[in-house]
Amino acid sequence: MGSDINPRLKEIMTSLVRHLHAFVKDVHLTQQEWEVAIDFLTRTGQICSNERQEFILLSDTLGVSMLVDAINNRRSIGATENTVLGPFHVAGAPQRGMGEHISFDGKGERCLFEGRVTDLHGNPVADARIDVWSDNADGYYDVQQPGIQPKWNNRGIFTTGVEGKYSFVGIKPVSYPIPHDGPVGGMLDALGRHPYRPAHMHFIVTADGFQKVVTHTFVGDDHYMTSDAVFGVKETLVAPFERVDDGVTVWRSSFDFILTPAGE
Amino acid sequence: MGSDINPRLKEIMTSLVRHLHAFVKDVHLTQQEWEVAIDFLTRTGQICSNERQEFILLSDTLGVSMLVDAINNRRSIGATENTVLGPFHVAGAPQRGMGEHISFDGKGERCLFEGRVTDLHGNPVADARIDVWSDNADGYYDVQQPGIQPKWNNRGIFTTGVEGKYSFVGIKPVSYPIPHDGPVGGMLDALGRHPYRPAHMHFIVTADGFQKVVTHTFVGDDHYMTSDAVFGVKETLVAPFERVDDGVTVWRSSFDFILTPAGE
Repeated sequence: MGSDINPRLKEIMTSLVRHLHAFVKDVHLTQQEWEVAIDFLTRTGQICSNERQEFILLSDTLGVSMLVDAINNRRSIGATENTVLGPFHVAGAPQRGMGEHISFDGKGERCLFEGRVTDLHGNPVADARIDVWSDNADGYYDVQQPGIQPKWNNRGIFTTGVEGKYSFVGIKPVSYPIPHDGPVGGMLDALGRHPYRPAHMHFIVTADGFQKVVTHTFVGDDHYMTSDAVFGVKETLVAPFERVDDGVTVWRSSFDFILTPAGE
Repeated sequence: MGSDINPRLKEIMTSLVRHLHAFVKDVHLTQQEWEVAIDFLTRTGQICSNERQEFILLSDTLGVSMLVDAINNRRSIGATENTVLGPFHVAGAPQRGMGEHISFDGKGERCLFEGRVTDLHGNPVADARIDVWSDNADGYYDVQQPGIQPKWNNRGIFTTGVEGKYSFVGIKPVSYPIPHDGPVGGMLDALGRHPYRPAHMHFIVTADGFQKVVTHTFVGDDHYMTSDAVFGVKETLVAPFERVDDGVTVWRSSFDFILTPAGE
């Protein structure tokens, strides 16, 4: 390496090469296995498109995404924890008023999501921006079905008022397989692993002066809670889903987001 | 992982995940650096085509290809060593008679390549197949210039007779950069590394009852001998290039290939 290069890049590449070589030596990688690896990485890159990011799936399914998050987001006790972003977030979802619906395809069981955004001391955080998204009742995010109407199904952005409250009506999410018709699906198969994620609602919560929270709330009794294909489950992120059947919604899920001050 | 999976795959993936996680922890990889890595791997896959294999280039430039070779091809002392195959070998080159020319574009300085194929005791190996290829005087392999005529320029396959001898007329190879207009080129740039390989002639030598040799002979006084971009140089592979100017060729390079019995 040159002497005049970015010292951080040098640190990263030195460590990468050391670990990569140690791996090759430890397993005594054969020429044929190396060829399989080259082919796997090539196919993983080639299947990527605007709608699909197979290398993120690979990182997720090898536990790397959760590890990167854990290293970079050590939160104060009591603060809401992060989990994987996943490949299905789309920037620019519609801003909606509190209590509004986000689910427009008529599928699934309606669920009221509600709660508060607070600081570590329980004080409300006003003007917090809550970006939410989930799959539909068939287990698909809208971006997995390009061209489908209505647009922005099961997505929306909400802003808290002075009391820090939020509420919106979506559906109770369902478990679904990550895209598994590509190289990562082949890998999971070969490893005897299923491709399913337990049902969850995605949230990104941002507010001035606080650390960004990228997280989910999980449906606690989901069959896949103990074997999430991307290792995203954290106990503190299990939300109650109460049956209410009040004529408007079938379920209600309350969850408060507790933010850590920026710079801590 | 499942209990009923290929034990070798299990061994490899367990080690891979352990080393990959150790790397991420050691460098305290940030979210942004992870995003750069995802983007780099995606671009590396997307630039691959029938004529270009960027993941092999990546493996080569990180020293992984040479390591895999070193692990799998421990030769007896005195036997010809392997080096990288590289991405430019093409199966099915024309069979040519001993002494024939392989260079047809009229460029470069003619060079007679000659020598013997023997076993570890110096006995000739008859019917050894010698597959050779090199760049042209501009530093390009024919496959890097699709559609160019004549086909199979600087490539050929030769078969030894009872005395184990080979000879053919090519050109004295020149140093050249590996393809560096893609992600791997960007990486080398950022690391302050040049993309050049020292001048070399490629050989694959196969014979019944012996281990396959995949190797080069190097032009020893090449400027890049001490900084080969893919770490392929081995001292034992430096061949003499003698100036002869005999009216037919400008150079002569003699090199003997010494084969190890199969299964040793």
